[in-house]
Amino acid sequence: MNAIGVSVPRLEDDRLLRGQGRFHDEIVRPGQLWLRVVRSPVAHARIRGIDVEAAAALPGVVDVITAADLAGMPRIPVRQPSPGIDFTPYLQPALATGFVQYVGDPVAAVLAEDPYLAEDAADLVALDLEELPVSLDARAGATLRPESRPGESALVGTVDFSYGDVDEVFATAPHVVAADLKVGRHSGTPLEPRGLVAEWNARARRMTVWGATKVPYFNRRVTARMLGIAEHQIHMLESDAGGSFGIRGEFYPEDLLVPFLALRTGRPVKWTEDRTEHLIAANHAREQEHRIELAFDERYRLLGLRGEAWLDTGGYIRTHGAVVAALTSALMSGPYRMAACRSRVHIVTTNKTPVGTYRAPGRFQHNFVREHAMDLAADRLGVDPVELRRINLLDGGELPHRRPLHVFGAPMLLDGKDHLEHFDKSREIFGYDTWREEARRAREQGRLVGTGCAVILEKAGLGHDSAVVDVGVTGAIRVAMGGANVGQGVETVMAQIAAEEFDVRTESVTVVLSDTDILADGSGTFASRTTVVGGTAVKLAAEQVLAKARRVAAGLLGTDPDRLVVRDGGLEADGEPGRRVTLGEIAAASFAPPYVRTGEEPGLIGRGTYLADAMTYPYGAHYAQAEVDPGTGAVKLLRYAVSYEIGRAVNPALVHAQLVGGTVQGIGGALFEEFPYDERGMPLATTLGDYLWPRASDLPEIRTEIFEDSPAPGNPLGVRGAGEGGTAGVGAAVANAVRDALRLTGTVGALPLLPDRVMTLMKSQDDDGATT
Amino acid sequence: MNAIGVSVPRLEDDRLLRGQGRFHDEIVRPGQLWLRVVRSPVAHARIRGIDVEAAAALPGVVDVITAADLAGMPRIPVRQPSPGIDFTPYLQPALATGFVQYVGDPVAAVLAEDPYLAEDAADLVALDLEELPVSLDARAGATLRPESRPGESALVGTVDFSYGDVDEVFATAPHVVAADLKVGRHSGTPLEPRGLVAEWNARARRMTVWGATKVPYFNRRVTARMLGIAEHQIHMLESDAGGSFGIRGEFYPEDLLVPFLALRTGRPVKWTEDRTEHLIAANHAREQEHRIELAFDERYRLLGLRGEAWLDTGGYIRTHGAVVAALTSALMSGPYRMAACRSRVHIVTTNKTPVGTYRAPGRFQHNFVREHAMDLAADRLGVDPVELRRINLLDGGELPHRRPLHVFGAPMLLDGKDHLEHFDKSREIFGYDTWREEARRAREQGRLVGTGCAVILEKAGLGHDSAVVDVGVTGAIRVAMGGANVGQGVETVMAQIAAEEFDVRTESVTVVLSDTDILADGSGTFASRTTVVGGTAVKLAAEQVLAKARRVAAGLLGTDPDRLVVRDGGLEADGEPGRRVTLGEIAAASFAPPYVRTGEEPGLIGRGTYLADAMTYPYGAHYAQAEVDPGTGAVKLLRYAVSYEIGRAVNPALVHAQLVGGTVQGIGGALFEEFPYDERGMPLATTLGDYLWPRASDLPEIRTEIFEDSPAPGNPLGVRGAGEGGTAGVGAAVANAVRDALRLTGTVGALPLLPDRVMTLMKSQDDDGATT
Repeated sequence: MNAIGVSVPRLEDDRLLRGQGRFHDEIVRPGQLWLRVVRSPVAHARIRGIDVEAAAALPGVVDVITAADLAGMPRIPVRQPSPGIDFTPYLQPALATGFVQYVGDPVAAVLAEDPYLAEDAADLVALDLEELPVSLDARAGATLRPESRPGESALVGTVDFSYGDVDEVFATAPHVVAADLKVGRHSGTPLEPRGLVAEWNARARRMTVWGATKVPYFNRRVTARMLGIAEHQIHMLESDAGGSFGIRGEFYPEDLLVPFLALRTGRPVKWTEDRTEHLIAANHAREQEHRIELAFDERYRLLGLRGEAWLDTGGYIRTHGAVVAALTSALMSGPYRMAACRSRVHIVTTNKTPVGTYRAPGRFQHNFVREHAMDLAADRLGVDPVELRRINLLDGGELPHRRPLHVFGAPMLLDGKDHLEHFDKSREIFGYDTWREEARRAREQGRLVGTGCAVILEKAGLGHDSAVVDVGVTGAIRVAMGGANVGQGVETVMAQIAAEEFDVRTESVTVVLSDTDILADGSGTFASRTTVVGGTAVKLAAEQVLAKARRVAAGLLGTDPDRLVVRDGGLEADGEPGRRVTLGEIAAASFAPPYVRTGEEPGLIGRGTYLADAMTYPYGAHYAQAEVDPGTGAVKLLRYAVSYEIGRAVNPALVHAQLVGGTVQGIGGALFEEFPYDERGMPLATTLGDYLWPRASDLPEIRTEIFEDSPAPGNPLGVRGAGEGGTAGVGAAVANAVRDALRLTGTVGALPLLPDRVMTLMKSQDDDGATT
Repeated sequence: MNAIGVSVPRLEDDRLLRGQGRFHDEIVRPGQLWLRVVRSPVAHARIRGIDVEAAAALPGVVDVITAADLAGMPRIPVRQPSPGIDFTPYLQPALATGFVQYVGDPVAAVLAEDPYLAEDAADLVALDLEELPVSLDARAGATLRPESRPGESALVGTVDFSYGDVDEVFATAPHVVAADLKVGRHSGTPLEPRGLVAEWNARARRMTVWGATKVPYFNRRVTARMLGIAEHQIHMLESDAGGSFGIRGEFYPEDLLVPFLALRTGRPVKWTEDRTEHLIAANHAREQEHRIELAFDERYRLLGLRGEAWLDTGGYIRTHGAVVAALTSALMSGPYRMAACRSRVHIVTTNKTPVGTYRAPGRFQHNFVREHAMDLAADRLGVDPVELRRINLLDGGELPHRRPLHVFGAPMLLDGKDHLEHFDKSREIFGYDTWREEARRAREQGRLVGTGCAVILEKAGLGHDSAVVDVGVTGAIRVAMGGANVGQGVETVMAQIAAEEFDVRTESVTVVLSDTDILADGSGTFASRTTVVGGTAVKLAAEQVLAKARRVAAGLLGTDPDRLVVRDGGLEADGEPGRRVTLGEIAAASFAPPYVRTGEEPGLIGRGTYLADAMTYPYGAHYAQAEVDPGTGAVKLLRYAVSYEIGRAVNPALVHAQLVGGTVQGIGGALFEEFPYDERGMPLATTLGDYLWPRASDLPEIRTEIFEDSPAPGNPLGVRGAGEGGTAGVGAAVANAVRDALRLTGTVGALPLLPDRVMTLMKSQDDDGATT
């Protein structure tokens, strides 16, 4: 019973380190064909014609399809509707229909005997395109009515999470601080690009699909609907994946094309994305332009916040719908007390790659915008930025704190223990005062060193998940859950949760993720919800197994069920260790009378479903110490630290790894990663030479501190989710540190803080776009 | 709601008739190896040595194993223990250990790149065997203590189902009639011999096994235990099968060897039995020698029955254990009222192929022995055989009738409506009086024509089964159940049961059988239990789906759940057909709030488990009219009819087909099929030239009449099981007809009534072994 809370080594490492991973690209099916997608070379155009003849005539080419072959098929739906917004005109078809909306928009698909032939043939598909004017700026383009969507505005809709009489507050507030800020376009760019293999078994009338990760059950339902077959005819299997970060595993055009062509040709179809494809075809993220205003009273107390933002959703609305906008908007007021807040986000189409949710969607943005504005406000108000936060953070007496908002259908209840206490303890642990003192001394020596901090409000764990736990006659324990192993160690964590229940070693538990035959439903791995929701489902399922095991064991041992204790994979009479049956023995007995009952599954099997009907709100603080190279504008992080309240750490080493990895990705978005476009909408970052991942040498030691002061009240494990807190505050802390280093009177303006942008900031310190 | 009771065409025929069946031999795995079993050429011997060198050296041979390679592995267990009998010393190892017990006993296994090489290599395995005396007669050999089982008797144990003071009854009875009868050794010999394919996936650490049929979940548990892996690591998949009849799908030595070698070599292993192998390696059945005594009072009323039998179990005890002996013994008194019965069956090993359960195990025997003795008694007592039965059959006033016995742990309650009424109605329907009159007239013309009837007591439906029913977002309905499609149409029947619940067309329901990933447990297809137990599980699962659908639909339609009626695959407000949601729409809504709940699986999925804790006892009557060729002794059946009370026919055409098919197999056992051995224990029927299947030209029209007068009280469908009633009475009715045709004063002595045996009977009508 001491599996939870222990930094057990990852179960998955054994196979991954031996090269025995189960990645989609390991799958080689007899007779498989290769898919190559023909993509639009221009950002916005009317399709006058597509000539596939030359491609189809190439020996080894088996099929070439265009939108005409998909006639009547619905467009790719959103996963979550957004009340008041009709996404229908903006949804992406699997192949472009009538118009192309971005460079990379799939217009045709080629199927050939090998991937090289497929690529050669794709080059032979001749597109007759009539170029149209492109829109590349969401704020400026919000009022456009693009020719390619007759009757529709580029503005898809506006998400608004407001409360209190904010205009009244601002009309009378003693102090108002405003800023205009941009977050750059970047995304999760996993080491392993996307890919899928599908095989139609005509005898069994079933499709096997390898490679789905994030939301396989949703994708199965979409595939079934689009192909017109039953979802029980589609078997999605567990895959390993080289990173996901929210962008892998959404339902993309290729997720339809691969099974569609497998069904159409009767042969297995494989698709593996190349890097350039990935950088223009997989979801981009983050790009938002914000205006924020903060109102304070004379005692530096936040009276209200007014925010407006324009989210550049790219050429279509993809499956996330308005989730990023909603999370930006709903959490804008962060962990602060304030009586009024208006927070609006406009979702605007442009002619760039469509966007989706990427690790800490919306929170990277809202934390950056709000926390950077807080530092600006501290300067303007003449108060220390730490103190300004301390004055306004919700404290223990105010928590749990109900915001008069509903997020994804649930009331917004900040369920933490004490945001102020966390901030104070965390600064103490990391010695943030010392960091500041170091920076001051460095500046005295003429170096451009600064510090920045940010308090963050995260969210996690909405929705439901299911799990099956079964124990066989050999005593072997299997857990099946609907998540995905995308590198975060979910297999290990689920095994720990089950091991805790059965008092066995974590390594002895086998975990199966998202095998749609073994487990009937799952919600997927996203939004830091796997441990919270899926883990609780595993716990409930294990408890169900133990309830039956207790009954059977009591019968076998001739004792009272209540006298039995779980010990070392068996049940024994408390105080009589010799009077014991193992789980395997119990399982063997449970398939036969008298332990079989009408209405109860035979054997030792438990099924758990857990619905988290409200989100849990983890929180934390980020700290950065940065130095700017005055000659190049390069930002070097000297120190970085993250503290995070996660309720309970199932595996502290994995939480640490999540925080560090998340921070590194945050640093990417704060300093390096960006998808620029030229004025015709041509993407300029199409290789990893253009799109800059942070390298080890770019990074300081990243310190983390896991707080377990505030177990989540909503689930029996008390866990809060740990996947995104490392990312959520980096933009804010880094921007604040750079602002401090440069002694900016205004803001940094935009992320990422690439050297040329920093150079510009240094050159125009007084022209910073900030107003009072 | 009118799917049940309709003779829907079989769903499986579409694929079977197109050659799209999913038989194990269709499976071809990349890199697969072929298994060939080296079998003992002698019936009883000590193994002095096995030289595999030459075989292993043959190019293309990958592995050769003997018992030494399986050291420490347990023997193949029985499925059902029998209180008081320790089967352990008689269980079969996967490869013979120390001794061989019959011709065909597996002693080594060869694995090669193709089946021809494997067979050639098997011939190179040199066996050094020291022959031992053989025992081929169970009754004579019951007291032996074979050298090959030190310390053990050839008598494995005795099964005794007795009640009342039978010796007292016989001591005072006015009339006692006795007979000695034998049932020959024959078996189910399906068109498709056995076979298995196993593949070990090292990445997934899972074994896939194709070809298991009868009891895949039991076989999975046994395989796991023997191989030392978890059963969740073994995935057994649905297979079609060219007949089963109780003998295919038991756990045989090959069922261990195939997965063992797949695990050992890491390569897929395939085994397909040839016909000769099948005839010496698959379970034989039936062979029993009986002594029966019937006691009557002056008014022809049965006072008691004394029976003793010797069951020739062959060289080992296989998985059925004592099931055949128990069923012979427990049902010996049949559908008659009698105050006392002693019925003992001795299970004795010999040096022949081991036996198992074959369609109507024990009942073919007990019905033959009892009903043939009844005809003998009628003659001896001077009463008409029909009348003698009428006097003694349990009638409506006496049913349900409790026999003071426990069968397989459950009290024996004959749950029919009226055995006498059934017999009377059935004779009337078939015009049996006319048959008798025809025979009389034919005899007057010098022909050897006779008639015989038999009343039978069957049993069905003990144990538990589970089912999963799910409805997807496209409205597609899938049923998963643990049975096997061995030709009886179970797929169709399960679909009908679900279709009835959802008011849809049977063809729109997909049925998956015994996929161990999709359904966690199942008991299998045997003992006429699939429709009774599995069908009820399907109904319960469908009801669970509908209960949830009703709740969701009520929410969607804004109405009361109780107002909703199921119609045409949807739910609608009663009387308002426009106010309706389809099952697909309900399913789509059921994955999201507010229709998801903690503790309940999301979606429209239902899991049903049904435990039949007592058997149901179907009953019926068989009628034969036969003519004997005086020159050859050949028996020609002129007429045949079966009536059967099955409670409720889900698909009358399939019940008819089961009765006809069963009757044909019964005719095989009554007239044609036999496994003879020479005095050294060499099997003489090793091809279908020696082992005679009944041919179409051997058969009369077989009339059937399905009675639905007495729905089974134990299950909500009211079904009783229909798989074996066609077989159970054939030996009796045919023997009685032949006896009548030949005007025998004694009995026929033994089945099958092959021409030479009939010639002998004709030659020695007065020397018939019957005594008074």
